[in-house]
Amino acid sequence: MVLTAIEMMENVRKKRPLVHHITNYVTVNDCANVTLCAGGSPVMTDAEEDLPEMVRLASAVVLNIGTLNERTVDMMMAAGQYANRLNRPVILDPVGVGATRYRTETVEWFLEEITVDVIKGNAGEIAVLADMGGEVRGVDSGSKPSARAVRTLAENTEAIVASTGEIDFVSDGSTTYQLMNGHPMMDNVSGTGCMLSSVVGCYTGANGVSIDSVASALSVFSIAGEIAAERSAGPGTFKMNLMDTLYSLNSDEIAKRIRTAIM
Amino acid sequence: MVLTAIEMMENVRKKRPLVHHITNYVTVNDCANVTLCAGGSPVMTDAEEDLPEMVRLASAVVLNIGTLNERTVDMMMAAGQYANRLNRPVILDPVGVGATRYRTETVEWFLEEITVDVIKGNAGEIAVLADMGGEVRGVDSGSKPSARAVRTLAENTEAIVASTGEIDFVSDGSTTYQLMNGHPMMDNVSGTGCMLSSVVGCYTGANGVSIDSVASALSVFSIAGEIAAERSAGPGTFKMNLMDTLYSLNSDEIAKRIRTAIM
Amino acid sequence: MVLTAIEMMENVRKKRPLVHHITNYVTVNDCANVTLCAGGSPVMTDAEEDLPEMVRLASAVVLNIGTLNERTVDMMMAAGQYANRLNRPVILDPVGVGATRYRTETVEWFLEEITVDVIKGNAGEIAVLADMGGEVRGVDSGSKPSARAVRTLAENTEAIVASTGEIDFVSDGSTTYQLMNGHPMMDNVSGTGCMLSSVVGCYTGANGVSIDSVASALSVFSIAGEIAAERSAGPGTFKMNLMDTLYSLNSDEIAKRIRTAIM
Repeated sequence: MVLTAIEMMENVRKKRPLVHHITNYVTVNDCANVTLCAGGSPVMTDAEEDLPEMVRLASAVVLNIGTLNERTVDMMMAAGQYANRLNRPVILDPVGVGATRYRTETVEWFLEEITVDVIKGNAGEIAVLADMGGEVRGVDSGSKPSARAVRTLAENTEAIVASTGEIDFVSDGSTTYQLMNGHPMMDNVSGTGCMLSSVVGCYTGANGVSIDSVASALSVFSIAGEIAAERSAGPGTFKMNLMDTLYSLNSDEIAKRIRTAIM
Repeated sequence: MVLTAIEMMENVRKKRPLVHHITNYVTVNDCANVTLCAGGSPVMTDAEEDLPEMVRLASAVVLNIGTLNERTVDMMMAAGQYANRLNRPVILDPVGVGATRYRTETVEWFLEEITVDVIKGNAGEIAVLADMGGEVRGVDSGSKPSARAVRTLAENTEAIVASTGEIDFVSDGSTTYQLMNGHPMMDNVSGTGCMLSSVVGCYTGANGVSIDSVASALSVFSIAGEIAAERSAGPGTFKMNLMDTLYSLNSDEIAKRIRTAIM
Repeated sequence: MVLTAIEMMENVRKKRPLVHHITNYVTVNDCANVTLCAGGSPVMTDAEEDLPEMVRLASAVVLNIGTLNERTVDMMMAAGQYANRLNRPVILDPVGVGATRYRTETVEWFLEEITVDVIKGNAGEIAVLADMGGEVRGVDSGSKPSARAVRTLAENTEAIVASTGEIDFVSDGSTTYQLMNGHPMMDNVSGTGCMLSSVVGCYTGANGVSIDSVASALSVFSIAGEIAAERSAGPGTFKMNLMDTLYSLNSDEIAKRIRTAIM
């Protein structure tokens, strides 16, 4: 997958995909900036009147329920359905699913009514959705990474499923990748998971939806995280360096660092 | 109070308290990151359906009226009342109280209907609430720090009251501490007051509500600010260094720098 | 204009104008911090009950439609009308106008019902509003900078109009300035346009509305961007350095770097 990730990164930078987000108000600025650093162009709007035209302009749509409410849930549903009609990839980040019934029911409703192309969550969120006893504490995972949960959820939903944690897994239901890049410092910054969903939006927007485009997004983002962590004194410098590193990442650094295995 | 602050810091890092926020959309990301750097785990949600379960999961609840509106005021009230029922500490940050009647009436309503454990404001906000002629310009204080205002408000409300400014005061109505750490650069970054409320959430969540847990939060945050300011070229680097410093602060730095007095 | 920009900068720092924003939730934190770094004091509130008093306290009002919705559009209208009644400068940032009908109709409604003092947009947004075939992709410009579009829109609206891009133009309909400061790195950070509108709020708030106060804001912000870019490894460090540089910018740096021409 080395060449794939490099080629896909170059493709994102060349095509500059517009990634439409309906996301939470906590990490939205970082999502916008990470989209730019990855090579895409971010747009965030949740006005009903804006959606049909913005989704049409976009190459991918990211739905993130971090700070959901009645109004934004309806707008996510509308954006997802427009995206389906217009064949735009839909990336769902089920933040905190399992922590409250409202979050669980909202995600279930989305999965019924929208064809979701990618589900990206932490290990706890993915295990909850795979009905495998996941634990979610606030918006943090309380579960261990599980290849089986990822594969099961991919089979059940026909989406590409990505689970993040100490080890990352990506599965399309038949093939499952194990990705071993990343750095513990990423857990000390709020919203690295949300940012990753934006990067997945860039990679699927520019390269189409596939297990390889999703896995490439994860590898590139995690490698940027590794390099940034090595240069950082703490979470503050790390977030800044993560943006810089993602922006300037080159093919040599990816080739040298990427660690993936097919399970 | 030297040992207390150090022990409380270690306790926060060990217990990793979940701090639930309903806060403003201006500084919410910094509140999330400062919570992580202080050793806690942040969660932000203001959906009615989420509140009962999220408050139950949380160790403390922070209510911040920085960008209040009808919907979020109702959600703050609901979260505060759930927190009371479940015995979770409630920290109120009355941003801009006194600048508009709406803010003043909202805070008065909260103080009537919610048992607020900690009120943390700038000198102007505290003087307004103590009925001592405070001045608030937008969201900035126009008043001098006053131990008397802090003590009076603590007596009237039975809350621990913390006032920030050139000198910080914390009072429970009988004892009043004067805290002399901090750095003027903290005023050049938007939301250092909001961030402090998140840190108070961490410290009361892990250590219980007391004048010492609140004062420890202020001391630790202010010492991190001092150290960060010494390493910074301006407000941009300062905010980044504040996160790094708070994250890596050790007991020696606290012991060497802490300056408190009982009045 | 060298002396003018320097004098106006010093005036902002001395007067510390309160700048009231109703703006988007993506870049609002950067707008608050850039206001502080420019020498002003930010306030953000969009509660109906807050507006009359906050607008009265403010020296300028910035309206930014980046993440507009029905509620906030009504609040922007109300804030603009209060500002008109109280003779506060109104700065409009028509983010993404032309990308969707909703944005276009909202801006047209504002321009009918509010006396807007300054319109600040990218080249595409200004060309759209000048009815000169502008192109807007999401919230990015797809048009080349055009002095004619800026002058035309200024004539039609009687506002000072500023257009940003590779070359910036500012016009009052009779005089047009060409401003040649800035750095391409500014496009790699989300919200530099929004931040500029906050700086325009500071400069018009402290110095009154004129082509010179608007052009000074653009020059100072762009010069800070140039210096910051020279010191930065990528978009993350750049955003931080932009804040530091704006905060500490001195008259020598402005005198040495400012590049303006009357067309």
